[in-house]
Amino acid sequence: MTVSPLAPAAFPAMPDIAGVTLSTAASGMKYTGRDDMLLMQLSGSGSIAAVFTKSDTAAAPVDWCRRQLGAGSGARAILVNAGNANAFTGDGGMAAVTTCCEGVATKLGCAPGEVLMASTGVIGEPLDSAVLAAHFDSLANGSADWQAAAQAILTTDTFAKGASTTAAIGGTDVQIAGIAKGSGMIAPNMATMLAFIATDAALPQPVLAALLADATDRSFNAITVDSDTSTNDSVYLMASGAAGNDAVAGADDPALDDFRGALDQVMQDLARQIVRDGEGATKFITIAVTGAADDTVAHGIGMSIANSPLVKTAVAGEDANWGRIVMAVGKSGAGIDQSKLGISMGGVLIAAAGTRVVDYDESPVALHMKGEEIDIAVKVGDGTGTARIWTCDLTHGYISINADYRS
Amino acid sequence: MTVSPLAPAAFPAMPDIAGVTLSTAASGMKYTGRDDMLLMQLSGSGSIAAVFTKSDTAAAPVDWCRRQLGAGSGARAILVNAGNANAFTGDGGMAAVTTCCEGVATKLGCAPGEVLMASTGVIGEPLDSAVLAAHFDSLANGSADWQAAAQAILTTDTFAKGASTTAAIGGTDVQIAGIAKGSGMIAPNMATMLAFIATDAALPQPVLAALLADATDRSFNAITVDSDTSTNDSVYLMASGAAGNDAVAGADDPALDDFRGALDQVMQDLARQIVRDGEGATKFITIAVTGAADDTVAHGIGMSIANSPLVKTAVAGEDANWGRIVMAVGKSGAGIDQSKLGISMGGVLIAAAGTRVVDYDESPVALHMKGEEIDIAVKVGDGTGTARIWTCDLTHGYISINADYRS
Repeated sequence: MTVSPLAPAAFPAMPDIAGVTLSTAASGMKYTGRDDMLLMQLSGSGSIAAVFTKSDTAAAPVDWCRRQLGAGSGARAILVNAGNANAFTGDGGMAAVTTCCEGVATKLGCAPGEVLMASTGVIGEPLDSAVLAAHFDSLANGSADWQAAAQAILTTDTFAKGASTTAAIGGTDVQIAGIAKGSGMIAPNMATMLAFIATDAALPQPVLAALLADATDRSFNAITVDSDTSTNDSVYLMASGAAGNDAVAGADDPALDDFRGALDQVMQDLARQIVRDGEGATKFITIAVTGAADDTVAHGIGMSIANSPLVKTAVAGEDANWGRIVMAVGKSGAGIDQSKLGISMGGVLIAAAGTRVVDYDESPVALHMKGEEIDIAVKVGDGTGTARIWTCDLTHGYISINADYRS
Repeated sequence: MTVSPLAPAAFPAMPDIAGVTLSTAASGMKYTGRDDMLLMQLSGSGSIAAVFTKSDTAAAPVDWCRRQLGAGSGARAILVNAGNANAFTGDGGMAAVTTCCEGVATKLGCAPGEVLMASTGVIGEPLDSAVLAAHFDSLANGSADWQAAAQAILTTDTFAKGASTTAAIGGTDVQIAGIAKGSGMIAPNMATMLAFIATDAALPQPVLAALLADATDRSFNAITVDSDTSTNDSVYLMASGAAGNDAVAGADDPALDDFRGALDQVMQDLARQIVRDGEGATKFITIAVTGAADDTVAHGIGMSIANSPLVKTAVAGEDANWGRIVMAVGKSGAGIDQSKLGISMGGVLIAAAGTRVVDYDESPVALHMKGEEIDIAVKVGDGTGTARIWTCDLTHGYISINADYRS
């Protein structure tokens, strides 16, 4: 598979996270010659939070994780498999998850409910838990780095995705590192398919959950490749506590200001990498919406532009066809006043107050369209609502990849 | 331009509608060697109803028509131009519409408010009304048949679209004939770009408006090509009264039963033709949803499937990838219970009660996928809500057409 032209030059150098152990294995279930299983283990005192797809047809592993995290029983491991989503598999699907988590729990000496599971791949195929179970022993005792972990969870992705940074919590340095996978079926409401972020910070589970939900809105929920939402989308944030920072009062504790910014940085980096691996993508598009009634309205307008096939194909064709942006704003259902609408591309004001500017010169915009990074800015009106959405263009590559992925 | 492989063999034979006069002209504004203007005139006693795009960035001619029809002043002509949508053109755009309608009114000897206008083409370009006005005299005095009219309103369409039938109202035979254009930017909430249906029935304007709105829900609002909604979508229904049928009591009058069915037939025929001319389409897809909580929920689920790029590319690739249908149902936000969900393709039951049927044999479905007509049926649950949506596949042709339409 050809690597996306928008891919980073290399997988980044990433730190080990104290208290978090990674290991990978090759089940041979769908892929040959590569690992397709990942086990992430957390030291005993750590905690895990997660956000999941809003799909009505959520997969069995998502149901399992929601149940376990909802029960508040704590979690200390996440098993991941790539190639079979275990989605729309009925009671048999949940039985397979249970068998897997019981099997891993036996190896780790913990309760089955402390093991979470995440799956990605084809929908509707029964998952044969025995194929995975044959590797639980080696997973429980193995060790891998972030790059190997990132590679083991890929499906149609063309490159492994990782990001990391550091932050200070009350004078103690902590590490944040994460990996993600996904390049199609990427849309609003948990857009990553799968992402796993780990930190050695000591943060109680409710704080972790609040930080994750907040950062997700500005990262994985602000990207789209094709408007399709997976049955398996999940983002996990695990904190080992190994850094030994002082206790925090809550998610709003000012001691977490730096950590919140660092978490944003890592999650937005991963989210952008997913867009850069968007199926068939040749252009990375940033859509900035300002002047909306509120942030939610701005988000909706940005997503309407980002999901418009006509906008995305115009960008693919390097066509400064801004009229399609007008169309996409109009169809968003936000109830805007078009006499206040303004549009810029590549920093060039094209239209203002509901019509094209008198002296509009397309040449600089046409030049901008030839680049790899396309900037679209929409000023909706006089409101204070803003949003920033990342997406990619829609090309022949998307069609080629998706017209025969499964067969 | 290559004619769509899904096009009908020929433009149908269509009757003249007494009391309705058509004429076409070539402005040369965008196209060469073809007509791009249409004038439809209605005899003095007739009435016109219309439904329009729900876009917040509706075009100037749409605003004009809404205002005139809202004022109830009656209408006796519709001027159409293809190549310039006169959308997002600010005050200048409305001034151009006003100039055009005044100009036509002068030729016809009526009030400017009795002339409606519909435009299709590029968004954001100022419309030069003088270029059109040069042809008002010949339009006012000319005569054309339905096929010439259908050809004059095309943009990216690959074939002219027409349909007609007859109905009886209280013992009097009446004719219904219509034309439409559109092949991209076709989505929910007025999906046709432009359609014009005429009848010689005698029907007061409020009855006409009710009949049109109702039939639109089952035709133009039940199709999608690419989920994008135009700034100019409009459907007009004009009734000349020349047939001299007895007066009706209202839109629900049983005397109109046959007419309602005939109107459905013509409008659904035109709607299907638009899908058959969907940009790049190679497969015609019918999605039947049953068992939903109500018809609105069923419609939303059907549209979610019909607009899913992953479903549409799977069909393009002749891939029986029914998992993507599960995904599309799940993301529709309908709040369904997946343990009741069933899916069939080509009449073959693939999944029931939330999982694949035990003895599922893909061979007949794979064979069905190789045909031009793809049938998808989704049984959501135990409700009574149903919907039928028509769409097409998403192919390399769509990308090719839209990556360089304007430039």
